[in-house]
Amino acid sequence: MNIEVCYSPQSYHLFHKPEAIVVVIDVLRATSAITTAIFHGVSKMIPIATMIEADEYKKNGFMVAAERNGEIVDGFDLGNSPFGYMNKKVKGKTIAITTTNGTHAIEVARKAKRIIIGSFLNLDAVVDYLKKEKKDVLFLCAGWKNKFNLEDSLFAGAVANELVNKHDFATICDSTIAAIELYKLAKHDLEGFLANSSHRKRLAKLDLERDVKYCLTPNQCPVIPVLEGKFIVKG
Amino acid sequence: MNIEVCYSPQSYHLFHKPEAIVVVIDVLRATSAITTAIFHGVSKMIPIATMIEADEYKKNGFMVAAERNGEIVDGFDLGNSPFGYMNKKVKGKTIAITTTNGTHAIEVARKAKRIIIGSFLNLDAVVDYLKKEKKDVLFLCAGWKNKFNLEDSLFAGAVANELVNKHDFATICDSTIAAIELYKLAKHDLEGFLANSSHRKRLAKLDLERDVKYCLTPNQCPVIPVLEGKFIVKG
Repeated sequence: MNIEVCYSPQSYHLFHKPEAIVVVIDVLRATSAITTAIFHGVSKMIPIATMIEADEYKKNGFMVAAERNGEIVDGFDLGNSPFGYMNKKVKGKTIAITTTNGTHAIEVARKAKRIIIGSFLNLDAVVDYLKKEKKDVLFLCAGWKNKFNLEDSLFAGAVANELVNKHDFATICDSTIAAIELYKLAKHDLEGFLANSSHRKRLAKLDLERDVKYCLTPNQCPVIPVLEGKFIVKG
Repeated sequence: MNIEVCYSPQSYHLFHKPEAIVVVIDVLRATSAITTAIFHGVSKMIPIATMIEADEYKKNGFMVAAERNGEIVDGFDLGNSPFGYMNKKVKGKTIAITTTNGTHAIEVARKAKRIIIGSFLNLDAVVDYLKKEKKDVLFLCAGWKNKFNLEDSLFAGAVANELVNKHDFATICDSTIAAIELYKLAKHDLEGFLANSSHRKRLAKLDLERDVKYCLTPNQCPVIPVLEGKFIVKG
């Protein structure tokens, strides 16, 4: 089985293979929030790309999460802080969600037959899932406004490293090799390695250090959120 | 002064700043060939993007280099092997050149006020040039058909590492941080590090190991090729 890493939603069309499992990654914070939500009992999430859709869902009585540039959009109850998805209010609910990068990444990969949600919070679960499925894997990093980012690449590297070293996966893809090498450099101190990263700085300004620490701590939510039609559900 | 690294010509528009100096990089092999040519006495090179233009220039009596997928296009005398540009036949000549990735990268950056050509062959010359110019720098990696590649990123990391550590340059760009970290990992054995890279394998199949070794040996051609209008000339 072959592994590739796509660093930006903009480049997805260069990597698209319908049969490959696409792992969408937006560590800070959309896919961490979604993983947390599904683990803590949110029933379904509906990823949507635009604020127009967000308003529409809100009008129709849905609970809606909306984040742009790291902050909750005015008039909405939830953003992409994982801590917003840990309380009783959201349990059993269906929540529509739009974020700066993560939901856009899900949107561009819609043509793929299988899309799952990855984050450090479900790292080992993702590895287990992929090794059981035995299919080609494409990691799609949400990045930041279509630019490369470090934290998403590190997660792709973390999973790829396991699959290549311990299971029957291989890669001839330079971005996968780079992601693995970067992860091996960073793995003993993810927070330290990311201290100078652009999005880490963005979030520090917004006083979101608690979120960052949480999102970088592996395996707190052993669950696989899977896209089924328009819903993300527990896989 | 600020440094950014763009991993793919496709993403150039996300990074475009007219005042920044753009360093176009296609280590294997277009910018290595151009650096070699200008160093060994080729008077001017005309980077062209398409085979249609290549045919046109040929009809008009120009010497034309044309490479696609690592090989010289049938009917043309030169490709992008640097060794083709070291002999008397090309000295003082004007040569039009089109390659799979490198000339495409030059094309997308045309709006920049200054474009220079970088490769390991002129590594120190590029560092010196940029530190004297004291302007923002954008490294534009040609990559492979708009995908990330390792060797171009490593060169960007090599120059960025020097500029950030020893001179008044800084970066808040994740792709620059990644390129620097990858270069620091690879610098003592570039060839070894690239042994599994995709393009290295492509060229090995074409029996171009001599080209690879040459292109990865720094500072053999201390010259700065600069784009002036439609020509690349000695800067």
